[in-house]
Amino acid sequence: MHEKASQRIFIRSLPEHILKPVLLRGWISRLRVLGKTTFVILKDCSGELQCVAASEALRELHLKTEDVVEVHGLTRRDERAKSGIEVDVLEIRILNRCGHNLPFTAATDLESIGQEVQLEYRPLALRNNSIGDIFRVQAALLRFFREFLTAHHFTEIVTSKIVSSGTEGGTNLFQLKYFDRVAYLAQSPQFYKEQTVAGFERVFETGHVYRAEPHATSRHLTEYYSLDVEFGFIDGPEDVIQLERELLDFIFARLNESYASVLLAHRAAALPRMLDVPCWEFAECLEMLKEHFQRTDLVDDLDPEAERQLCRLAQEKTGAAAVFVLGFPLAARPFYTAPRGSSGAASSFDLLFEGIEVTTGGQRLHRRDELEEAMRARGIEPANFESHLRIFDVGMPPHGGFAIGLERLTARILNLANVRQAVLYPRDRYRLTP
Amino acid sequence: MHEKASQRIFIRSLPEHILKPVLLRGWISRLRVLGKTTFVILKDCSGELQCVAASEALRELHLKTEDVVEVHGLTRRDERAKSGIEVDVLEIRILNRCGHNLPFTAATDLESIGQEVQLEYRPLALRNNSIGDIFRVQAALLRFFREFLTAHHFTEIVTSKIVSSGTEGGTNLFQLKYFDRVAYLAQSPQFYKEQTVAGFERVFETGHVYRAEPHATSRHLTEYYSLDVEFGFIDGPEDVIQLERELLDFIFARLNESYASVLLAHRAAALPRMLDVPCWEFAECLEMLKEHFQRTDLVDDLDPEAERQLCRLAQEKTGAAAVFVLGFPLAARPFYTAPRGSSGAASSFDLLFEGIEVTTGGQRLHRRDELEEAMRARGIEPANFESHLRIFDVGMPPHGGFAIGLERLTARILNLANVRQAVLYPRDRYRLTP
Repeated sequence: MHEKASQRIFIRSLPEHILKPVLLRGWISRLRVLGKTTFVILKDCSGELQCVAASEALRELHLKTEDVVEVHGLTRRDERAKSGIEVDVLEIRILNRCGHNLPFTAATDLESIGQEVQLEYRPLALRNNSIGDIFRVQAALLRFFREFLTAHHFTEIVTSKIVSSGTEGGTNLFQLKYFDRVAYLAQSPQFYKEQTVAGFERVFETGHVYRAEPHATSRHLTEYYSLDVEFGFIDGPEDVIQLERELLDFIFARLNESYASVLLAHRAAALPRMLDVPCWEFAECLEMLKEHFQRTDLVDDLDPEAERQLCRLAQEKTGAAAVFVLGFPLAARPFYTAPRGSSGAASSFDLLFEGIEVTTGGQRLHRRDELEEAMRARGIEPANFESHLRIFDVGMPPHGGFAIGLERLTARILNLANVRQAVLYPRDRYRLTP
Repeated sequence: MHEKASQRIFIRSLPEHILKPVLLRGWISRLRVLGKTTFVILKDCSGELQCVAASEALRELHLKTEDVVEVHGLTRRDERAKSGIEVDVLEIRILNRCGHNLPFTAATDLESIGQEVQLEYRPLALRNNSIGDIFRVQAALLRFFREFLTAHHFTEIVTSKIVSSGTEGGTNLFQLKYFDRVAYLAQSPQFYKEQTVAGFERVFETGHVYRAEPHATSRHLTEYYSLDVEFGFIDGPEDVIQLERELLDFIFARLNESYASVLLAHRAAALPRMLDVPCWEFAECLEMLKEHFQRTDLVDDLDPEAERQLCRLAQEKTGAAAVFVLGFPLAARPFYTAPRGSSGAASSFDLLFEGIEVTTGGQRLHRRDELEEAMRARGIEPANFESHLRIFDVGMPPHGGFAIGLERLTARILNLANVRQAVLYPRDRYRLTP
């Protein structure tokens, strides 16, 4: 008779416990009965493991996949096992049974299961690595984003999502009952990140933003997670673009390192290097689109088709389907956008990546008088924004920044057809649960 | 004549540029004119530096503190300077002037400036290290929180803050117009973090939560930032408490290491070790409060005064003003709380730290039938929570977790009188701007 371990260990740390009694806990992810022997594949947050038991000893437990169990066992090396280790079961105890009639199990090929059902049973889908890994990659993306910026003198900020007015003029705002007043959900931390540049010089924020988007396409959400960056003392939008190149290059290199097999399960190749992503002027893009794709219909913005076409051109020229487009028409951009020259272009850019815009950024106006003028030109009354404008008196450096949509970038990185697949609990025009 | 540097460098990297021409950018944080020589203290996101210029050469610039400037200079070692380095000015260029009549400057002693004015000019206050450091410590706290959990197999999750109903029965919810429906702002990610335990086993989230608190005390906010942790396969609430001990011990040790001088500017001693923080039963606490403070008025909860008194007792006994209180009356806790024994106590705890509750946590019910029973006992109709309850069918391990209020913990760590001092842009019953 073997002594029992009393402290639960993770599957990943089994190599430190060879030939010792161990206590494991997890889910039964597969069961194979081969005559007198039953193989129980156990899964916990650190990995999977094959346990070996006498079929007879398990009979009365009526184990099934997804049951929550505790395994007392003895660890031994086994060349035949994937991890090189197996555990001989001394005892299995059921901690909680899963229900009958689940619509799928964690081992089901989820391609055959509809999105609605997957969302209703989100946690069960997460237990399947094909879905769980999407969010592990997303968490890593967040981690590397913060790591790079922290190492480059950026301070993380947390700003309010309840605001008294919108930053971009009041369309598509969700309205809130705030005691006896009306408030809105923030569409972006734009004002706050610009303001805090005057305090910290370099700031970032990761947080939710809200758009009451009346359409529910494969690329729109009403609530999404924005990775915001803003910094001072720039010479022009090229500095902002360069920082984003370096940031994404860092993130992608780290993802390639840590999640190589996950990435290759979703996409044809590793993530590209980003340091050499080109920057094309908007006007130049229109010409290329005309020349290569006979597009004569575009005037002051790109459409989704044009984004895909430009990515295709970038791919041909550089090997990576990524390009910064700089110099959109100023009139179509928010009032705080700095002009680019005097021809009506804006110092603002989009990053198109693998067919879709994943970032908008640019240089902002940093002088109060210019901001006021830009507001008036758009019919906005500066006095209504006094609490924001006064910050431009306290010593505001020339500055710029960008915002990356976490879900869109995750969807591109993992080649997901719909941005909803990159949100644990998506919200759109029609979806408010789970 | 010296050649000019063309690439801006940070003040912190000056030691790599001794006797070389440098280009610096930042704010003028102080100006001292001593006859023919003027000392310009320059500040950027990496530090401060003394620059030396001929008074005559600066005359026409009319420099003042908070102006945004660019300095071309030559770096040399100087024993008399704090950093051991000074820069001789070749040229100063003004990038943006600050306004006249600012209510304070970054060098003002902010003790003399009212909270309202400081909030109206938040970024200027941030440029003063006495305020800026609060948020640098807060950002570090967030970083160390995520770092510890990531190293312990936790996956970061991002969950929706727009929900169709409250987790705790519908009081103090902010109501939202969601297209043609009504929705609410999430009071906590409780349901989502419990659900995702069934997928990832161990999860954390850092994000906003909302309470329509009708009172505006020094400890209440309507929007705060919650550090949420939840994990499976626990034996009881003691496992949750132990994880929080280890987490806070890690965070505090790292803060002591990286922010020693900031901490000592705000508090009498470094942050305490947290591994030995005691855990007292609620019933035991009531007896101690009676014995030591003649408190006979407490029945089913602690009040702020009792929290302070228990911290005082903990301080006397252990040297640290921190104690976990476990086993609050079950009736006063939310329906998902697991019982502790059969005497009406809950497997839930608070962490009291330096006079105030900074955490609530505990073990949760993990069986669907028990959850339904607990809901009915509180007059909640289980059918209304079907989308949550069904997740308890998919293989839900015994689990628990806790939530730390970021602002409250920051306020305790830095000994701030009001939790608003630990929020960049606070929201309360009356405050909706800036």
